[in-house]
Order: sequence, then structure tokens, then C-alpha cells
Amino acid sequence: MSIDTPVPPGSADARPSYPVDATNRVKRLHERGAYDHETVHAILDAATMCHVAYVVDGQPYCTPTLFWREGNRLYWHGSSASRMLRNQSDSQPVCVTVTHLDSLVLARCGFNHSADYRSVMAFGRARLLTDPAEKERALVMMVDRLFPDRSAHLRPSTRQEIKATSVVVMEIDKASAKVRAKGVADEDDDYALPIHAERVPISMVIGEPEPCPRLLPGVERPAHLAPYRAGRRLDEVLTDAHARSIG
Amino acid sequence: MSIDTPVPPGSADARPSYPVDATNRVKRLHERGAYDHETVHAILDAATMCHVAYVVDGQPYCTPTLFWREGNRLYWHGSSASRMLRNQSDSQPVCVTVTHLDSLVLARCGFNHSADYRSVMAFGRARLLTDPAEKERALVMMVDRLFPDRSAHLRPSTRQEIKATSVVVMEIDKASAKVRAKGVADEDDDYALPIHAERVPISMVIGEPEPCPRLLPGVERPAHLAPYRAGRRLDEVLTDAHARSIG
Repeated sequence: MSIDTPVPPGSADARPSYPVDATNRVKRLHERGAYDHETVHAILDAATMCHVAYVVDGQPYCTPTLFWREGNRLYWHGSSASRMLRNQSDSQPVCVTVTHLDSLVLARCGFNHSADYRSVMAFGRARLLTDPAEKERALVMMVDRLFPDRSAHLRPSTRQEIKATSVVVMEIDKASAKVRAKGVADEDDDYALPIHAERVPISMVIGEPEPCPRLLPGVERPAHLAPYRAGRRLDEVLTDAHARSIG
Repeated sequence: MSIDTPVPPGSADARPSYPVDATNRVKRLHERGAYDHETVHAILDAATMCHVAYVVDGQPYCTPTLFWREGNRLYWHGSSASRMLRNQSDSQPVCVTVTHLDSLVLARCGFNHSADYRSVMAFGRARLLTDPAEKERALVMMVDRLFPDRSAHLRPSTRQEIKATSVVVMEIDKASAKVRAKGVADEDDDYALPIHAERVPISMVIGEPEPCPRLLPGVERPAHLAPYRAGRRLDEVLTDAHARSIG
């Protein structure tokens, strides 16, 4: 399966999609589920943080980490000494989840209190990048995915730094997206009750950037950081940055 | 172990803490780790969403869900038909992780790019609440933890609604907090380079509340929602709400 599979015009059902089986089928409220690349990738690319679930001796762990997507691969990195990466490097099954909390929904009864959200669960097997060129390229992507073109302006990584960093790659074998975006949804009879109901939007927002206090005189903020300005939604900035750097 | 263990005055080391073993010991950058209840609970109570890792037939899953803490117990809920809850109800080991992304850190080299964050990994075994009174109380807490006093203003839950909802409780056996809050931290020599570095603050922010379009005339926004106003940080509102509703 390739994400480059052409989409016949007007044929929504033929959109490239991840395969579905018992692992990733959205069972509860299945009308909220989707498996097509476009939906899954849009949710992934609007995020920089994921949670990775993995198993060590029967004990599940859930570790937050920064990640990025290229094609149908997910990458994340960490110290070469990390427990998480050591235990993920051996083609172990992992589940990578990304969630955007978009609102809290206050209904007229407790049962219909809810939240709007966009989430993806991606399943696959993780392995360490061992090829030095592949690893170096991934470390550049890790920065440029967030801040397109930034790597070229940095002090280059030393051999020691590259050695101290491990990069994990996971081919997405299966994935599902689950989206709720409907705000208040009460029982028909409940709309007649004199009870307040509302949707409280939530988003991750960028604050006022704080320059390093030890900047050399005359060092200006580079143009590649312009999208990171106070008040912007992080998911929108990340989506744009991904399109510009990885596409 | 009880969270009510008295803390001898001036004895920071005697603060009530979660036990530490190989499962929850923070290995990488252990100076960022903490196990005391105060640190762990503050990170949990500033959040409403967690990610729960669990294992089914050797396959890890990572599911986002809303949760809350009372004492050293975590609660979450879902449909009685949910795969996640069914597979968590049998005293299976789970890992509940909460993460606040507080900044992106742009350094003078790729290696020192980082993020400020607060996270907790909590380990325990999940079981379904079966006692009807306990379950009903938990469903009230679920709403009031977010919006103190709101339950009293709602149409009461029906027997069918309560039956359709499952509540999971997990006693926290072990937990660790990991916090990075230092912004830019470059190699000593790198501060002499003419390269821009900065910290980009990130936070979850409340937007303008959207009243349900079908509100009855004359229904005012209740006072218990006053903290949910546009521009406020969600983590601060949640911390206050938790203190007022559960304490």
C-alpha cells in the first residue's frame, strides 16, 4: 500500500486508506471512525506530541514524546540510553496515539456531557534507525518539520551528539482516526428543559516567544520562526510547517 | 500508604510519595523525576485528558480519555460496550499518562532543541466500579470535577444511562512525574555563536464559550461556569475546579 495510490476522481470510497481489522476497527460510535490517509495524516501532522504505548514483560507503558510523519512512517527520537527506545527497537508492537482536545461539551444531563476531539491510533512495529545517513537525515527532519529551514542555520551536530541520539521509525501497519465535532447533542426531550448547555472551545495556543537572555548582540529572530507568534493555534502552525518541510 | 500521611514540618524528604521500583523509576535525566504525591497530583489535577496504555493479547493500545483523581485513585469512564473498558476491567495492569506541553525550545544546535513539559506516568490495575451507589457517585464527580456544583443543576441520570456507562477505577500503585522547565539550555561554547535561540510557550487555552443554539429563552449562563472564560489557561481552571470539587 502506498500513499501515492491515485484517487479516482469523485470516488470517495477509493481514497487511499489503512487496512482495517479487529485491532484498529473503531467499535464504539463507529460513525466517528475513519481510516483514510487524508484524515489520519491531517490529525497526525497537526501535532508534535504523541503518546507511545509499548509492553515490557507484560507491563504496558505509555510515554509521551515528540514525533513526526513522513509518508506512512512515524519517527520519534530520544537518548540512546532510554528505556523506551531500547524496548521499542526490537520490532516490538507499539501503538502511537495523537489526540487534540477541541472542546468540553456541557449538556443538559450528565450522560451527554462530552468533548470534541480528533485522535489517531497508529499501530506498527518500531525499529531503530541504524544507517548513519538515514539517522542524520531524520535528525534534520525532526527540527525542520517544526521550523522549516532551521537546521541550515544551526551549529551542525557533532558525531558524539548523533551517537547519543537514537531515532525510532515505525511503518504504520494499521491506523484509525476518531473525530467528534458536534458540540452539544442532547436527548430530544431535554431541549425543552430550562438548563444551560454550551460548548467550551479548547486549543493549544502559542504564547509570546521568549528570546534566550544570552543572545549575542545583533542576532535577529530569523524569518523561519515568523509563524510562531503569540495567539496562533499550534495545530495550524504545525500543519503548515509540515506541508512546507515534508509535504 | 495514604495521602493523608502527616508530613513532619521542614522535612522535605518525608513528603508522602509513591514507592519507586524498576517500573516507575525515572532513568533518563533522573534529575527531572519526582515521586511525591504533591508533584504527581498537581500534574494530574491540572488535566482532564489522559492516555491509558493496556495490553490485549500482547498488542499494546493507547487510548485517550477524560479522567479525574480522588486521593490516590484515578477514575475514567466510557460506554459499557467499549473495548477499552472491557479489557481494563479484569485487574489488568495499565499505565495512565498525563502530559502538559509547556513550550518548544529552540537551541543553537539541533541536539539541544527540546520542549518544556510536565508529565506523570501512573501504574496500577484497573477494575470496573460495580457497586451502584459508588458508580452513581463517580458519575456525579466526573461532571463536578470539571464544573463544581453543576450536577445539581442537571436533569438527573436515568437508570438506563447509568447502566450504559461503565466507570473504571485504578488505585495508583506507583507513579512518577517528569518535569522540564528550563527553556533554552545550550552547550557553554555555543552561547558565543551568532545563532538565534528562544523558548516558545505553549498552553491549552479556553476559547469563547458557544451557548447551545436551542437554549430556552431566559436561561442564563450559571455562575458555576464563570471560570470557563475566553483566554484563560485550561490547566489553571482545572486545578481550581479540582480543589473546589474534590480537594
